Amino acid sequence: ESLTLSEATDLIEAAEAEAEEMGLKMVIAVANPEGNLIAQHRMDDAWLASVEISRNKAYTAAALQMPTHELAEPSQPGESLWGLQTTDEGRIVVFGGGYPLEADGEIVGTIGVSGGEVEQDMAVASAGVERFEERHA
Amino acid sequence: ESLTLSEATDLIEAAEAEAEEMGLKMVIAVANPEGNLIAQHRMDDAWLASVEISRNKAYTAAALQMPTHELAEPSQPGESLWGLQTTDEGRIVVFGGGYPLEADGEIVGTIGVSGGEVEQDMAVASAGVERFEERHA
Amino acid sequence: ESLTLSEATDLIEAAEAEAEEMGLKMVIAVANPEGNLIAQHRMDDAWLASVEISRNKAYTAAALQMPTHELAEPSQPGESLWGLQTTDEGRIVVFGGGYPLEADGEIVGTIGVSGGEVEQDMAVASAGVERFEERHA
Amino acid sequence: ESLTLSEATDLIEAAEAEAEEMGLKMVIAVANPEGNLIAQHRMDDAWLASVEISRNKAYTAAALQMPTHELAEPSQPGESLWGLQTTDEGRIVVFGGGYPLEADGEIVGTIGVSGGEVEQDMAVASAGVERFEERHA
Repeated sequence: ESLTLSEATDLIEAAEAEAEEMGLKMVIAVANPEGNLIAQHRMDDAWLASVEISRNKAYTAAALQMPTHELAEPSQPGESLWGLQTTDEGRIVVFGGGYPLEADGEIVGTIGVSGGEVEQDMAVASAGVERFEERHA
Repeated sequence: ESLTLSEATDLIEAAEAEAEEMGLKMVIAVANPEGNLIAQHRMDDAWLASVEISRNKAYTAAALQMPTHELAEPSQPGESLWGLQTTDEGRIVVFGGGYPLEADGEIVGTIGVSGGEVEQDMAVASAGVERFEERHA
Repeated sequence: ESLTLSEATDLIEAAEAEAEEMGLKMVIAVANPEGNLIAQHRMDDAWLASVEISRNKAYTAAALQMPTHELAEPSQPGESLWGLQTTDEGRIVVFGGGYPLEADGEIVGTIGVSGGEVEQDMAVASAGVERFEERHA
Repeated sequence: ESLTLSEATDLIEAAEAEAEEMGLKMVIAVANPEGNLIAQHRMDDAWLASVEISRNKAYTAAALQMPTHELAEPSQPGESLWGLQTTDEGRIVVFGGGYPLEADGEIVGTIGVSGGEVEQDMAVASAGVERFEERHA
């Protein structure tokens, strides 16, 4: 089971609204549980690099079934997943801003946000996650 | 000068409405004049391959400043641009469904649609082009 | 032995002058005998796709030691090099506009031009080749 | 709005002059605000790797709208953007030598230099930035 396009754009709009309120320009991507894109919006003047990075944050959250910020620590030098970030054709992102979206214990999609500092990306993505949770409450 | 995200999603919604009326499931991408993505929507159950193809139709329309269907004939075996379709890191699409969006003689963005037969892709993309032209009339 | 940067930019300027006289916007690349770039200029408003294509025409002329238009016929369906254009990581261009630059029977560099119809690309590249030959006469 | 080819080659020549004065061999690339190449020169005997690195420094300065040396610290192990350098298809360079070129508060192009130690790359690129600023003073 997967998010629909209509749900995906609703989450993106919630994230955009949060970004605007914070004065940020972000790229927001929503993917299905297989990591394939459902929808992506680049806010005006958001970083070009964030197009690829937000898409890959959404991919990573699906491909490893966890938030991307949880990969930061284990991918450090000397840690167990050192080297993870250069696997899977360079699509794995190991910093925050990507989240799985779970309903009834099952991942039905993911969201990835890029465009600012990591904490900002996480805050904007979280607004999308919250909208998802409201819809599934 | 480039389309804004708000304009891009408006064109995508016009194309989606046309696809729904035709009973089709499409992926629709809008890019800026340098071929970089502004927004992309994958309608529910649209082909996975169309995510990449629609994005590359939008890219091609920007990168060669013409509709993608105009590349079909010159890239045929025996024609002058035979081999074009495998250049530029595989991003050039030589069948219909990608269009530049021109205002005052300048390309300000492009649209690319994939998900059905080429004539269907072209019809759905054209609905986006028409919405663009209404906005700039 | 290889062309110098100073010679390379001289050839590029000769090709640019020809393009301007013909009212064309081209991207012009000069590579060394190993196919590696020496210099590249994108004329204002030249096609984006031509950045990669001109570079790869120069690469192809070095990598196969012949003008790229000579690859058009043998790479056709049913001919001996059918499939050539998708080898070598997609860098082989099989239409005209790339030429080796030979002095004393030895290739010392190549030129690749893209931005118009194939005959136009060839004419503009030829202006670069002619400048080269004047220098080595 | 973007730099013209004529401006781009002027900045490259200023950087080349600085490199020559310092006894260095550099590759210098200038890109437009969307990270696409305008011009690139490889000085005689400059490192081959610098062809790609200088191009990607120019790309990075456009794609993240900041000088590349500002990415060195946040992409270190344990820092917030650890892993940034392997995102965006390997095009992000996190050491110095890439700079945005701003006129009236807007980025109109970027410059990327590679071929020596990072401080040398930065010094040579800065000569291009200074020429840009003189032109826009």
